[in-house]
Amino acid sequence: MSRITMMIDPGLPTALFADVIASHGEYVDLVKFGWGTALVTRDLDHKIAALREAGIGYYFGGTLFEWYVVQDRLGDYLDLVERTGATHIEVSNGTIPLDQEGKAGYVRRMSRYRPVLAEVGYKDAERSARLSPADWAGAIHEDLDAGAELVITETRESGRSGMARPDGHLRDDVLEAVLAHADTKRLLFEAPTKDLQVELIRALGPEVNLGNIAAADLVGVETLRRGVRGDTLLQMTLPRTVSLV
Amino acid sequence: MSRITMMIDPGLPTALFADVIASHGEYVDLVKFGWGTALVTRDLDHKIAALREAGIGYYFGGTLFEWYVVQDRLGDYLDLVERTGATHIEVSNGTIPLDQEGKAGYVRRMSRYRPVLAEVGYKDAERSARLSPADWAGAIHEDLDAGAELVITETRESGRSGMARPDGHLRDDVLEAVLAHADTKRLLFEAPTKDLQVELIRALGPEVNLGNIAAADLVGVETLRRGVRGDTLLQMTLPRTVSLV
Amino acid sequence: MSRITMMIDPGLPTALFADVIASHGEYVDLVKFGWGTALVTRDLDHKIAALREAGIGYYFGGTLFEWYVVQDRLGDYLDLVERTGATHIEVSNGTIPLDQEGKAGYVRRMSRYRPVLAEVGYKDAERSARLSPADWAGAIHEDLDAGAELVITETRESGRSGMARPDGHLRDDVLEAVLAHADTKRLLFEAPTKDLQVELIRALGPEVNLGNIAAADLVGVETLRRGVRGDTLLQMTLPRTVSLV
Repeated sequence: MSRITMMIDPGLPTALFADVIASHGEYVDLVKFGWGTALVTRDLDHKIAALREAGIGYYFGGTLFEWYVVQDRLGDYLDLVERTGATHIEVSNGTIPLDQEGKAGYVRRMSRYRPVLAEVGYKDAERSARLSPADWAGAIHEDLDAGAELVITETRESGRSGMARPDGHLRDDVLEAVLAHADTKRLLFEAPTKDLQVELIRALGPEVNLGNIAAADLVGVETLRRGVRGDTLLQMTLPRTVSLV
Repeated sequence: MSRITMMIDPGLPTALFADVIASHGEYVDLVKFGWGTALVTRDLDHKIAALREAGIGYYFGGTLFEWYVVQDRLGDYLDLVERTGATHIEVSNGTIPLDQEGKAGYVRRMSRYRPVLAEVGYKDAERSARLSPADWAGAIHEDLDAGAELVITETRESGRSGMARPDGHLRDDVLEAVLAHADTKRLLFEAPTKDLQVELIRALGPEVNLGNIAAADLVGVETLRRGVRGDTLLQMTLPRTVSLV
Repeated sequence: MSRITMMIDPGLPTALFADVIASHGEYVDLVKFGWGTALVTRDLDHKIAALREAGIGYYFGGTLFEWYVVQDRLGDYLDLVERTGATHIEVSNGTIPLDQEGKAGYVRRMSRYRPVLAEVGYKDAERSARLSPADWAGAIHEDLDAGAELVITETRESGRSGMARPDGHLRDDVLEAVLAHADTKRLLFEAPTKDLQVELIRALGPEVNLGNIAAADLVGVETLRRGVRGDTLLQMTLPRTVSLV
């Protein structure tokens, strides 16, 4: 899979959510109901109906998975997945004390139920900073081996943790190590800020899989992919560029 | 009162406002029409109707009160309150040159008309920084004595003034002094940013009263209160945590 | 022309766009479909219909003009303008390698088709920083001479480039030079952040033309112009201020 755009829903009101899908659904492949928002969303059924009609996949943020795991209630989580018809399961250890090996075990188990999106990286900036480029590459390799359909590289909603530095730019060393060990088609890069979106499209091309895209940025990301925004215009049009007056 | 969530309306378009209340109204106790936005809102009546139907209180930002006061038009302000059925009156001196004693006098007078929310702190960062922890505690005490139902601690929409430092984090010394002198149930903490929401919930628990919450953050704040977001997950679930695989 | 407010549409969903225009259209004079968003907006016709009904002008971001120019497809651009009934044409050189003289040539040519908004300043922060105050004043003068109805001063969507410094505040030296050489009524200042809106209204008064205003900030900007927001309250009400209790 490539050119995937995953939108995060941080708790949009229902009519606005439907408006976003009706207006820009063609630019969305997956919707993640961010962290545990699904538990406090009154009209989750309406949102799901809009996604089904548009043929868009949907799943719950990894934090919700962790919330159930840490309480030893995995069965309840699988019931929720079943009841809502979620198309994927995200498996992560961004918050709870679960090591990489333990996470890979969950990737293996959850793959029996749904295609799994496995996340690498921690929400805590310091904990993420301690992950070396080799750690990132190793964890990605392990999660794919365990059966993950896609591996997600964490950068948080702020775009300042995980694979991003505290200044909001990509950790180039990590990116390099990751690309040396994994097929980019199997990676979904969280890119909640325009800086990260631009850097990833410049580095990996318009087909790069991007995640945690806000509803308000769907059109913006699509214009970046097509080179009709300043940041990527010259890169994309260069082959077609003519001499100027 | 506790676990109050006050949403600020900075001038949402009418249908979106109704959508927010219909979708997330159960997580809102009070709506503040921010500063003087009510004066330039075409369909204020529609917004008010949505709030009444949902049983949510509403009032005008303290800046509007100050705008009338500084022009010696308090009677016009009371007419507006009467005409719109505002359920509360906010009394503040965040912008105009009105001292604490003068403000407390207005708290006393306005309490005859509506329950009063009295604000402590200034919009100007430097002016706020000059308030010592003892000044904060004293002002809160005085406003409660004058009859305020709740005292609001200012942090501005940016979350970088008042009780927040320019770096966006809480002034711990002020928080400590305030808590030593007032019942947290009588305080409403302005917390427009996720950083402040997380710090206040971690420090004072999920029942803390939070204000200046954006419509887009209502669900996020509710998940923080319930511990289904990374930032508060371990704190809230710890008692229920089991050993991990 | 003065007191113009230009709203930027970065790709709002269709119903929300209509809601904004219905609710706050009276505070909008011009809508810019930002950069190349028009090319990836499914329901552009619906948006245009809402603007026509409200009597609001609309045009495409300068980046779209540049995208066509750099591909030698100016005829296609004029077809788009014709087909959509855009009321203005923005001519800019913010991204492509087109010098000021070349841009002024396009201002002249495009003026045959529509009133032209000519933009001065570059999207790249370093390239913009190299423009001296005299360069800014000269470029503005040249574009007006070439027939531009209005000259737009670039600050990007982030408010941290063009006439803004990297810290988000105005370049005072540029502002001074610009004002010495041009009638403010012929200038439209991009002011996407509250800091810039406040600084421009304080410096040039409530009638200043402001651009790149987000839909979410329309009411906020109007309250700043009228002095019913903290940042401009005392300036606007001072003549009417009475002594306080």
